[in-house]
Amino acid sequence: MAPEPQPDPQSVEDARVARTRNDVGRAALQVLTSEGWESMTHTRIAKAAGYSKTTLYTHWPSRLDLVTLALDCLGGMPHHTRTGNIAEDLAGELRAFRGGILDFALDRILIVLAQWGASVDEIAEIRDRIVVDGEGVLRAVLAEFAEGARLQAAVSMLSGVVVCPALMYGTVPTDEEIDRAVEIVVSALLTPGE
Amino acid sequence: MAPEPQPDPQSVEDARVARTRNDVGRAALQVLTSEGWESMTHTRIAKAAGYSKTTLYTHWPSRLDLVTLALDCLGGMPHHTRTGNIAEDLAGELRAFRGGILDFALDRILIVLAQWGASVDEIAEIRDRIVVDGEGVLRAVLAEFAEGARLQAAVSMLSGVVVCPALMYGTVPTDEEIDRAVEIVVSALLTPGE
Repeated sequence: MAPEPQPDPQSVEDARVARTRNDVGRAALQVLTSEGWESMTHTRIAKAAGYSKTTLYTHWPSRLDLVTLALDCLGGMPHHTRTGNIAEDLAGELRAFRGGILDFALDRILIVLAQWGASVDEIAEIRDRIVVDGEGVLRAVLAEFAEGARLQAAVSMLSGVVVCPALMYGTVPTDEEIDRAVEIVVSALLTPGE
Repeated sequence: MAPEPQPDPQSVEDARVARTRNDVGRAALQVLTSEGWESMTHTRIAKAAGYSKTTLYTHWPSRLDLVTLALDCLGGMPHHTRTGNIAEDLAGELRAFRGGILDFALDRILIVLAQWGASVDEIAEIRDRIVVDGEGVLRAVLAEFAEGARLQAAVSMLSGVVVCPALMYGTVPTDEEIDRAVEIVVSALLTPGE
């Protein structure tokens, strides 16, 4: 019989580092969404992740490193599966976005992205990637009916139905508000523009 | 001849306190909009206002007190003067909002309001007051053509044309994007809803 294959020490080490990164990243994201930016300290996240502060400082020396790690652990945004009916698809996607705010505190993530994206290039890149993913379905559905400035206006308007109440009133839109917003956009886009 | 009236010591003291409050508040607002939340410390604002740290700590013990003071010094939002033409008024108001972001860093104020309004009641009250003022003209123009959920949807959608690019892309909408957004809302609202 051939001897049992032995684990490669390098791959054991790589797996350990990947596990640490994953554990700390998930804990950091959890702290960010449940407690907000002010709690994003090495002490708080070390405790939440069950690692030493020394380990955290070694791999992620600054608070910005911890925020970047947390945002990297953010999975894809929740999305609606398209049916081909424009009004249904837009309303479904806005409800999925609203669900992300209610279930995953996406609004806190958006605030951190807005706050840091303005001054830190590394966060701006993460923000752009998250926004492209977040807007993807809305933009794809709307692109069948509009282009250029009209398309961009429609994307911002429908995103605004969820973003504005979340950030400016601390609330989310009702089903009826979502439906009325979709009606406004659909009725205008099915009419030829200038 | 009657003797010259003497200044009342109490009113001299009141004037001095009001002047300090005004100086520190304006400096705090300036630091907030030009440098962002992270710079809102007693040391930085004392230096910017030309007062001692002791004075600042005496009147405004916490960073939150300084933020509240800064936001209290924010004047009314820039607004368009209504002409009675719905499309002109909505586009003019969105351009005024965009001007506030470009000229007064209103986007940084919105981020602070969103960030703190979610957890601090005192900031939530200031946020609500600023949002009511900020949305006032849009809401008044739209209220002539819509009500209830349809009105709220239209307010969020048009606010979103400016808020979403500012917070999510770090940019502002073009004139053409504003015009196309207004067209979408006007063409839908001039059609009877359900």
